[in-house]
Amino acid sequence: MAAERDIDDLPRGGANYTALTPLWFLERAALAHPARASVVHGPVRYTWADTYRRCRRLASALARRSVGHGSTVAVIAPNIPAVYEAHFGVPMAGAVVNCVNIRLNAPTVAFLLEHSSAEVVMVDQEFFSLAEDSLRIIAEQKKGAFKQPLLIVIGDQTCDPVSLKSALSKGAIEYEEFLETGDPEFAWKPPQDEWKSIALGYTSGTTSNPKGVVLHHRGAYLMSLSGALVWGMNEGAVYLWTLPMFHCNGWCYTWTLAALCGTSICLRQHFCSPSSQVTAKAIFSAIANQGVTHFCGAPVVLNTIVNAPPADAILPLPRVVNVMTAGAAPPPSVLASMSKLGFRITHTYGLSETYGPSTVCAWKPEWDELPDDERARLHARQGIRYVGLEGLDVVDPKTMAPVPADGSTLGEIVMRGNGVMKGYLKNPRANAEAFENGWFHSGDLGVKHTDGYIEVKDRAKDIIISGGENISSLEVEKAVYQHPAVLEASVVARADEQWGESPCAFVTPKDGADSSDEAALAGDIMRFCRERLPGYWVPKSVVFGPLPKTATGKIKKHELRAKAKELGPVRKSRM
Amino acid sequence: MAAERDIDDLPRGGANYTALTPLWFLERAALAHPARASVVHGPVRYTWADTYRRCRRLASALARRSVGHGSTVAVIAPNIPAVYEAHFGVPMAGAVVNCVNIRLNAPTVAFLLEHSSAEVVMVDQEFFSLAEDSLRIIAEQKKGAFKQPLLIVIGDQTCDPVSLKSALSKGAIEYEEFLETGDPEFAWKPPQDEWKSIALGYTSGTTSNPKGVVLHHRGAYLMSLSGALVWGMNEGAVYLWTLPMFHCNGWCYTWTLAALCGTSICLRQHFCSPSSQVTAKAIFSAIANQGVTHFCGAPVVLNTIVNAPPADAILPLPRVVNVMTAGAAPPPSVLASMSKLGFRITHTYGLSETYGPSTVCAWKPEWDELPDDERARLHARQGIRYVGLEGLDVVDPKTMAPVPADGSTLGEIVMRGNGVMKGYLKNPRANAEAFENGWFHSGDLGVKHTDGYIEVKDRAKDIIISGGENISSLEVEKAVYQHPAVLEASVVARADEQWGESPCAFVTPKDGADSSDEAALAGDIMRFCRERLPGYWVPKSVVFGPLPKTATGKIKKHELRAKAKELGPVRKSRM
Repeated sequence: MAAERDIDDLPRGGANYTALTPLWFLERAALAHPARASVVHGPVRYTWADTYRRCRRLASALARRSVGHGSTVAVIAPNIPAVYEAHFGVPMAGAVVNCVNIRLNAPTVAFLLEHSSAEVVMVDQEFFSLAEDSLRIIAEQKKGAFKQPLLIVIGDQTCDPVSLKSALSKGAIEYEEFLETGDPEFAWKPPQDEWKSIALGYTSGTTSNPKGVVLHHRGAYLMSLSGALVWGMNEGAVYLWTLPMFHCNGWCYTWTLAALCGTSICLRQHFCSPSSQVTAKAIFSAIANQGVTHFCGAPVVLNTIVNAPPADAILPLPRVVNVMTAGAAPPPSVLASMSKLGFRITHTYGLSETYGPSTVCAWKPEWDELPDDERARLHARQGIRYVGLEGLDVVDPKTMAPVPADGSTLGEIVMRGNGVMKGYLKNPRANAEAFENGWFHSGDLGVKHTDGYIEVKDRAKDIIISGGENISSLEVEKAVYQHPAVLEASVVARADEQWGESPCAFVTPKDGADSSDEAALAGDIMRFCRERLPGYWVPKSVVFGPLPKTATGKIKKHELRAKAKELGPVRKSRM
Repeated sequence: MAAERDIDDLPRGGANYTALTPLWFLERAALAHPARASVVHGPVRYTWADTYRRCRRLASALARRSVGHGSTVAVIAPNIPAVYEAHFGVPMAGAVVNCVNIRLNAPTVAFLLEHSSAEVVMVDQEFFSLAEDSLRIIAEQKKGAFKQPLLIVIGDQTCDPVSLKSALSKGAIEYEEFLETGDPEFAWKPPQDEWKSIALGYTSGTTSNPKGVVLHHRGAYLMSLSGALVWGMNEGAVYLWTLPMFHCNGWCYTWTLAALCGTSICLRQHFCSPSSQVTAKAIFSAIANQGVTHFCGAPVVLNTIVNAPPADAILPLPRVVNVMTAGAAPPPSVLASMSKLGFRITHTYGLSETYGPSTVCAWKPEWDELPDDERARLHARQGIRYVGLEGLDVVDPKTMAPVPADGSTLGEIVMRGNGVMKGYLKNPRANAEAFENGWFHSGDLGVKHTDGYIEVKDRAKDIIISGGENISSLEVEKAVYQHPAVLEASVVARADEQWGESPCAFVTPKDGADSSDEAALAGDIMRFCRERLPGYWVPKSVVFGPLPKTATGKIKKHELRAKAKELGPVRKSRM
């Protein structure tokens, strides 16, 4: 070894450098706590020793079928152990795991499988026909050029065996049988380069063309640790899977739990399952009986808990339960109610492109003493960057100049650093746009408060422009949510003869709320808003009914916009 | 942007890649908790906003004097805020921080300063003459070729102002004045490459030639986060600096505390200060009055606490206090006593070359139910790898084959991964040896237990060979420690006419132990050991007195070996 010229000259070698990858976490968990529960699903209970062996089997079985570097393995399943295992077994083989949103329809899934060139499709027994239909669509489109992926069906003993039998009769390999073909001692290797891809996930988006977000080993490692750090999530945490694992890899908690040697409690019936919504009963029961310390949920999950019928709520909680919420900002009233029940809410924000949540409303102990309203107002902000995201700002999207930290100047939220995706798959134009000027452009609009915390005000396209003035649909929603009869609400622009656009509120009333006279309730909501908002922000129309949602629980604003369009413009009123 | 060929092809860019460095932690802490205490030292209390500004001032002031990439800044000081600041301010300027052990003598410090080509020396007022003497020695050796480093003296209002005045009269710049020359808004940049060096630390070693361990930004970032993770150390932790910051950068906790937005409580009088030992009183007082939740200490610190006079102990503890200990394995009796007092002990092990601790005896809840002795025995093991260290094994040093996990086969402890140093400065031979066969060679001997946990048995050179059989001096020490009259003990080889070598115990009796008749006490200790050890492991000689220690509290075995040599060989006894 030659003498170095200066103190920066010492070279890398096998002893002091290796690629960062969350795969290291699994190896360590199996060593540290081999007998501790890793993944629990109904009567099925795996230990970390089991999970490590099963993941190595999966990797080995894939490798033996030449699935490896450059390959994509699609997974179509709710929260069951096999999805957890795919997060390790697939990259151990060198391949990329693509968890597919199970609420998508066959044409969309066909688009994804074709776009990602999936070589293997792992599918839960109940979603077999979705996979089958999707593959048929591709086969028809591509004719002879189509190579059928390897189809693996995952049996679930908590389901009716009929769908499994049917799948097997059609030639799919059963997952457990497939694992049997792999070596439980498979000598996996970390990727040669930590920039290698580990996961692919399509934006469920409110747009028509899903984009494939590619994540790498380095980012997955760093954001997994960040997710533990900002949440105060320690070794041995017990995590309830209300959030789908297919949604941004479960916000990286799939990998975090291995780093913490924690336990995953699966909830097959999560909030976006087609068969049933996640219930407050299931959540309270897991807290009471399975030692749950942490779970994540979109605001709709919080809503479900806060509005649980007394018979379903097991209170008081046996311990502090930490709840991370993201997506849209939860209404202050929901935040306050959750705190009163004894849940500790951590409010985060992020996108598929930032490995899930990447900002956190870091709580300050001095806020504990503030009045409820003030606490909720501070808490509803999206906050500061994760430890694993090195840059976060709100900027003028044209000049890239940061907006003043005044809590009112609107700008685009931009991010940069190791917590930003590798890029969109086969989409150079989208990449060029997303990464313009050296920042990732979130497409979300927000403000920076005097304390440096950011707050999302709207998706760029969710701004309502009334008489030339911007109205934040999120702010209007917040006001509507506070009305005692409102369970859920979403506000979009509706054409307005006089003002160009005006706010139109879509509202689901609470069970038991008196909604027999919709016109009276609508009038009451408008009056309620008038006390809280500038006059031109008050919804001019209120429409009642269930809200359409994406697979991940986000309200499909584009459908509501379409409905608002059908309603036609608000007529000019005589004042 | 060209379309990628496959899913691994997306390139790095400014938006989605940046160097890992703990400097990011500081920027974030100042944003998240600007008003929270960052570093407290007697009457001095800095907030994170202060610390960030002060560190940027330091970086800017250094940069204005052309101290930057390739430069080394030496720091000679006990645990005071300036040392904390140097851990950020120096690398923000692009330079490398070298914290020097304050118990070293002038010729050794001269060697270090010359070897590291220190361009700046920051020195605490009380250690000014040490710096002065060291620089004089270099000047004499190098004659005209010597360029005097910039000398900055750090005043400490908890000290007598005389030494500060004296230093200033000799032309040194006062630290606060130096900071004034820097810009508090200095636009620091992360290193272009995370492999760039951040810190240099010389092994205090028991050998005569100190080696300069070079650490890089990437490793410092990863091991800082690891240190939080394995210890369950959360956001806002309050950390008491009993461990010197100059010792492996305070085991990376300097940087960890910024990641956690925690608070550092300085203890100027730490256990290796020349003026006084760290006292149990100071520790209990900080726990009671300053909210301390965590501290680190070599076993000697634990000893001090366990043997504290009742008047000094403030019990019961107001909260669980987490104590990390490393270095030598603490005797089981000390571990058990600490637990009884309410301290939660985490036992770790590591070297300067692994950023401080890099293995942890990960505790299993099921061990809580075991009898005290059994718990202590399990707890005294060095355990498994940190999350940030990817490889740990015990191997036959010749063949590199792992030893069987049988708890008895001795081998060398080897490590690899991102938690291993960059290398030794200007020492290609030592690097080649240390990194031979793709592993870092610790030089420590140990075993692997059936559960995969490792246990250090000895430094290679600490093995005593008696009649051709290996004796672990550590095991003998453990037995001696259990004797009720023993405060501290160290066991080395002494020449033996009959057996070649035999164990010689150096013992400090407890205050109050009846040591008036040393021969009787020695005989009693030998009898005590005979009940616990194989006959040939029993010390044939017991010598009483204080034990010589390195600046970091390690017992200087080489001095004891020299003493044992002076004693001459143990005479052949007639049996």
